Amino acid sequence: SRSLNLAVIPGDGIGQEVVAQGLKVLSAVLPQDVKLETREYDLGAKRWHRTGETLPEAELDALRHHDAILLGAIGDPSVPAGVLERGLLLKLRFAFDHYVNLRPSKLFPNTATPLAGRPEIDFVVVREGTEGPYTGNGGSLRTGTPAEVATEVSVNTAYGVERVVRDAFARADARPRRKLTLVHKNNVLVHAGHMWKRIFDKVAEEYPAVTTDYLHVDAATIFFVTQPERFDVIVTDNLFGDILTDLAAAVTGGIGLAASGNINPTGEFPSMFEPVHGSAPDIAGTGKADPTATVLSVALLLRHLGHEAEAVRVEEAVAADLAARGESRPGPEGSAGGSLRTTDEIGDALAVRVAG
Amino acid sequence: SRSLNLAVIPGDGIGQEVVAQGLKVLSAVLPQDVKLETREYDLGAKRWHRTGETLPEAELDALRHHDAILLGAIGDPSVPAGVLERGLLLKLRFAFDHYVNLRPSKLFPNTATPLAGRPEIDFVVVREGTEGPYTGNGGSLRTGTPAEVATEVSVNTAYGVERVVRDAFARADARPRRKLTLVHKNNVLVHAGHMWKRIFDKVAEEYPAVTTDYLHVDAATIFFVTQPERFDVIVTDNLFGDILTDLAAAVTGGIGLAASGNINPTGEFPSMFEPVHGSAPDIAGTGKADPTATVLSVALLLRHLGHEAEAVRVEEAVAADLAARGESRPGPEGSAGGSLRTTDEIGDALAVRVAG
Ligand SMILES: CC(C)[C@H](C(=O)O)[C@@H](O)C(=O)O
Ligand SMILES: CC(C)[C@H](C(=O)O)[C@@H](O)C(=O)O
Repeated sequence: SRSLNLAVIPGDGIGQEVVAQGLKVLSAVLPQDVKLETREYDLGAKRWHRTGETLPEAELDALRHHDAILLGAIGDPSVPAGVLERGLLLKLRFAFDHYVNLRPSKLFPNTATPLAGRPEIDFVVVREGTEGPYTGNGGSLRTGTPAEVATEVSVNTAYGVERVVRDAFARADARPRRKLTLVHKNNVLVHAGHMWKRIFDKVAEEYPAVTTDYLHVDAATIFFVTQPERFDVIVTDNLFGDILTDLAAAVTGGIGLAASGNINPTGEFPSMFEPVHGSAPDIAGTGKADPTATVLSVALLLRHLGHEAEAVRVEEAVAADLAARGESRPGPEGSAGGSLRTTDEIGDALAVRVAG
Repeated sequence: SRSLNLAVIPGDGIGQEVVAQGLKVLSAVLPQDVKLETREYDLGAKRWHRTGETLPEAELDALRHHDAILLGAIGDPSVPAGVLERGLLLKLRFAFDHYVNLRPSKLFPNTATPLAGRPEIDFVVVREGTEGPYTGNGGSLRTGTPAEVATEVSVNTAYGVERVVRDAFARADARPRRKLTLVHKNNVLVHAGHMWKRIFDKVAEEYPAVTTDYLHVDAATIFFVTQPERFDVIVTDNLFGDILTDLAAAVTGGIGLAASGNINPTGEFPSMFEPVHGSAPDIAGTGKADPTATVLSVALLLRHLGHEAEAVRVEEAVAADLAARGESRPGPEGSAGGSLRTTDEIGDALAVRVAG
C-alpha cells in the first residue's frame, strides 16, 4: 500500500488552526490505500523564545526525509523582524532548493473582490524562490551611526533563472491560453533584468505555441487592477513575486484564499506548501481565520505528489463552498474582519464535500 | 520684476504633447509680473539615435542654472531598455540630488477607479530618489553564458535615509491627519530595512503629533486596493516607491492623472517635475494623451517655487475639469484608450479655468 509521509509545521498565530483544517481535508480526500503519516515540528516564535533556536540542523535533516511539508504561518510581533523569516521560513526554502514558488490566483464566483466589474482572474505566478534580493547577501557598516551604509545584494544566476523560466514555460504550454509574461525592471536593474530577458527570450524559442510578453513590475501592478484578465502565467524574481502575489491575492478575494507551493521540481528535496497569508496574531484563537488558503495549498501538495484527481476534488470543494457562502468573507490580513462560520466549521464543510 | 527660468525636456512619445499643455497652463496661471523664460532641451530617443548621446556634460551644466525643469517622458522601444532611463532620467535625478520623489495620489470626484465602492483616497508617497537599488551598483560576470552571475546592489546610507524620512515627517506634520507610514521589507531585507526602521523611529520622537505605522511592501499593496483611505503620507525606498506609485495611480484614476516632483529640498539644484506615466509611443501623435498628469506636475512645480496660490488654482482647475468631464477617461498606460477631448482641448480648457 502507498503512503504519504508528511511533515507539519503549524508555526505561529493562526498557523495551528488553519493547518488542522488542511489535515482534516487531506485525510478526507486521500484514497483509502494511501497511508497518511504526519509528524509535527515545533518551530516558530514559541520555540525561539524557549530555546533561541529557529531551525536546528537535526530538524532540518529530519524534515528532508518527508514526502512534503505543510506549513501554517511563521512570525510574531514578539520576535524581531527577520529572525524567523530568515532563520526558518527562508532557510527551508533555500535548504530544500524550492526554486519554483508557485502561486495561483483565481477569482472564484461569489467571493469578494475590491475590483469593480469583477474581471475574470485566473493566473499563476511562478516566483523564483532561491535567488534575487532574498539570498541574505549584503550587510551594514557603522551600524547605528550617522555614517551607516547598508546594502542588500540581489544575486541572480543563469543557472537559477533558466530553470525557473523553463518551469514557467512548461506550465504556460500546458494551459489553454498558453501565455507567459515576464515581469522585471530591466530598464533600471539592467544587469539582472537583461539576463532574465535574454534567458526568457532564448527558452521562448523552444515554445513557439506560447505567447510571450514583458512588463516592468510597476506597470504590472497597474494591470493587476485594471486588466487582470490579461495574465495567464507570470514568471518573475523573488522580490517582485512576493509583492505581486500579495496584490494578486487582494484582488482575488483576499489573502485568506491564496495558496502557495514552494516546489523543488527535481524531487531531490521535499516541497513545502503554505498559505500566502501570515500568522495574523490579532485573530489567532478567535476562530475567525479562513482555512481556505491552507486547504488550497493542500490541493497543490496533492497535485505535486501525483494525486491529481484528489487535488481537483479539493479545488472543486472550495469552489462549491465559496459559492454557497452567500456572503463575502475577508481574509485574515487586510480585512475588515468577521465571518459567519468558524475556522473549524469551514474545515468541516470542506472535509464533507471532498469525501462526498 | 520676478522671473521663472524653466528648462523643458519634452523627451519622447507623448512627452512633447503633454508638456505643451503644461506650459500653456503655466503661462495662463503665472502672475503678470513673473517673467516666464523657457529653454527647450533636445534629449531622449531621437537625440540618442542621432548622436549616441543621452545627457552630455554641457547640457547637464546648462540645466543646473534653471529654476526648475519640466520633463515630459523618456523612453522608446527602439532604444535598449535602460539606456535612456539610466543615462538621462536617473542621471538627472542623481546629479541634481532629487532625494525627495514626491508623488501625491488623490481620487478626484467623477474619475474612474477600478476599485468598487470608490474609497476616499488622498495620500502622498515620499519616495527616496537617490539610493536603493537605483544606484547602478552591481554588474554581471560571464555575461551571456550559462555560468553568468548578475548582481544588483541596493545601497542605503543613514545620511540618505534620514533626510528623506525628515522630509516625510515634516510633510505629515503639516497635513490634517498627521499620519506617516513607513513601507519596507525589513523581515527579509534586514540590513537596509532595519536601518530605515531605526532612523524612522528616531525621527518620530521629534514629531509626537504624527501617528506612525510600518508595513511590509507586499502588505502595503493589499491595503492600496482594500483600504487606501488608511494612508496619509508614505515614506519608502526608491524601488518600493516606484512600484507603489504606479499602483496608487492605477487606483486613483489612472496613470494619466499622476503627477510627480523630483525635489532637491535644499535648493542647491533645480527640482524636476514630470508625469508618472511613460512616453506611450502607441498613442503618440494621436491626441489621445491626457495632459492632466503634466498639468498637476506643474502645480507641484509652482508650489515648490513658492507660488502656492497658483498651485492651488491649477489643482482646482483640474478638479473642476475632471468633475465636468462626465465620462471616465483612461490614461495613456494600462488603459482601454479613447477619450472625448484631445490633449490640446484639455490643455485649453485647463488654461481657461486657471486664468478665469
Ligand atoms: C514572511 C516573508 C519572509 C515571506 C516572503 O517575503 O517571501 C512572505 O511574505 C511570503 O510571501 O511568503
Ligand atoms: C522610467 C523609470 C526609470 C522610472 C523609475 O523607475 O523611476 C519610472 O518608472 C518612474 O516611476 O518615474
